[in-house]
Amino acid sequence: MSESNRQWILKKRPEGAVRDSDIVLETGAIPKPAEGEIVIRTLWLSLDPANRAWMNETPTYMDPVPVGGPMYGLAMGEVVESASDRFSLGDRVVGLGRWAEYAAVPADAFQPLPDMPGIPGRDVFGVFYLVGPTAYFGIHDICEPRAGETVVVSGAAGAVGSIAGQLAKAAGARVIGIAGGEQKCGWVTDNYGIDGAIDYKNEDVGERLDALCPEGVDCFFDNVGGSILDEVLGRMNNFGRVAQCGAISMYNADAPQPGPYNYLNIVVRRIKIQGFIVLDHIDRYPEAYEHMAGLRSQGKLNWKLEEDEGIESLLSAFRKLFSGENAGKMMVRVAA
Amino acid sequence: MSESNRQWILKKRPEGAVRDSDIVLETGAIPKPAEGEIVIRTLWLSLDPANRAWMNETPTYMDPVPVGGPMYGLAMGEVVESASDRFSLGDRVVGLGRWAEYAAVPADAFQPLPDMPGIPGRDVFGVFYLVGPTAYFGIHDICEPRAGETVVVSGAAGAVGSIAGQLAKAAGARVIGIAGGEQKCGWVTDNYGIDGAIDYKNEDVGERLDALCPEGVDCFFDNVGGSILDEVLGRMNNFGRVAQCGAISMYNADAPQPGPYNYLNIVVRRIKIQGFIVLDHIDRYPEAYEHMAGLRSQGKLNWKLEEDEGIESLLSAFRKLFSGENAGKMMVRVAA
Repeated sequence: MSESNRQWILKKRPEGAVRDSDIVLETGAIPKPAEGEIVIRTLWLSLDPANRAWMNETPTYMDPVPVGGPMYGLAMGEVVESASDRFSLGDRVVGLGRWAEYAAVPADAFQPLPDMPGIPGRDVFGVFYLVGPTAYFGIHDICEPRAGETVVVSGAAGAVGSIAGQLAKAAGARVIGIAGGEQKCGWVTDNYGIDGAIDYKNEDVGERLDALCPEGVDCFFDNVGGSILDEVLGRMNNFGRVAQCGAISMYNADAPQPGPYNYLNIVVRRIKIQGFIVLDHIDRYPEAYEHMAGLRSQGKLNWKLEEDEGIESLLSAFRKLFSGENAGKMMVRVAA
Repeated sequence: MSESNRQWILKKRPEGAVRDSDIVLETGAIPKPAEGEIVIRTLWLSLDPANRAWMNETPTYMDPVPVGGPMYGLAMGEVVESASDRFSLGDRVVGLGRWAEYAAVPADAFQPLPDMPGIPGRDVFGVFYLVGPTAYFGIHDICEPRAGETVVVSGAAGAVGSIAGQLAKAAGARVIGIAGGEQKCGWVTDNYGIDGAIDYKNEDVGERLDALCPEGVDCFFDNVGGSILDEVLGRMNNFGRVAQCGAISMYNADAPQPGPYNYLNIVVRRIKIQGFIVLDHIDRYPEAYEHMAGLRSQGKLNWKLEEDEGIESLLSAFRKLFSGENAGKMMVRVAA
């Protein structure tokens, strides 16, 4: 066991895109657990667009990351010290960890890594732990696609979007994915079996939606917000449902962003838009796991992981989410 | 029975506010019913903000009013000729009529005027026929206020808003109404028993919401859209519900209007926004009537009607909806 602990400290709340001086890698001591805490050695960290919002002063669904403390991230780790009877040394756990080699965290905010036969722990953490349930609750609780309906997914090559599209396909819908670049659009149709893809970086999204969704859009699983949301909202059918999973186009903005100009369609076409956070449904994760594992065993659920190596790569890995460079669920292997 | 028929003809689709030259009162012949039609003599016409949207080229939940034909409006009338076995001469009926003294309309688009013991036909038409059910479905199906929650209603002195506020009160919520001007705010609290009122014409809506809703907003029944929606959305609690009944601030706009700048709160606070149109729930009107009649008999449901006289006053009566001059549900008595 190492004697020092490298961790990324939030020095300053970023304005717009995160700068090198906002989050800095520093070396400190390995923390000791307070009563009820465990110390984990971080094995994997998950990079997610929502991490950006946690850096802001405005509270989200949890308190902001304190300035001067280590950045938060979803972590899979091994318990190396325990002041809680919830976990023992050597347990592999998942929960809200830190961008750090070691972190002292409340034991009751962690769960055991789920055991999924035939699926490596890395994939269980990367896909089943939060990403998959996020897609599941958005599609099944909010979008509720019926066979034959048209579902659009934005961020369709991304971690959550790629699962959401496949879940909608499995429910019998026709699915169109929106992604950035020719290569990602290829994954959407070829790897994830989605019916059509729109390359928002090189194509006119409105025109392509008209071409690919001639009967309009019944459900929209949206990770992006902004102008893509507006284009889809302009083409939704009566009684359409929008699962507002995220709005990555708005996270880095340093000026207020307008909502969709097609807002009035909400009334005229009786549209429902609903935001959700997967953490609210933690008691129902087993339902999501079971559904996904069933599809996986039928060959109907694929995913891609993009792994960077070493704690020093966290900030560059995080930035890939916003540049769109990552090729799948973005993860960093902090320790073997 | 008169031999001529005065009717308001849509000459041109308005841009922005309706001009005198867009809709013109002309005199023609009394129409004859085609097979399946009835001819009604219009007794009352209802003026509603949604009428403005029907004048536009863009289809709403129904086809636009044809240019060159009479303007549409909700009507209570007496059947004077019938080519349908659904109604007989002398029946009093309600449905989508015309801004006309006489109109030939499809019989199956009309219903008998509901019989409500102790309530005059004019009030049944003005309040129970569509206004009341609109408030009822928005409050009970979408907002679902629980006892002790805070509900905000915009257009709170208006026809639908005044009923919505009272229904939320009856459900045990604390209710704050937003209305234009001191006099209307007085009605909101004094006539409709709402807990507090905000005068958006003379007060800072955000500051007043902070003062009157110190624990945030759980439900919003919105008739207005625009900046008022934005202020409320910025103060909604987790799992808040917005019934998007209308967006009168956007109807007259001749340039696209942005949606709310606080859109991202939909994700962060897991907010549901749902649009609805009362006509979708026509089979459940009796449920709404029964609920409202029960409250009325307990003295918990009040309303105000503003009646103008004569078919020539329709356009000026319609304009009052947008200037905010009307003192209650806006109606025109076309014939005695």
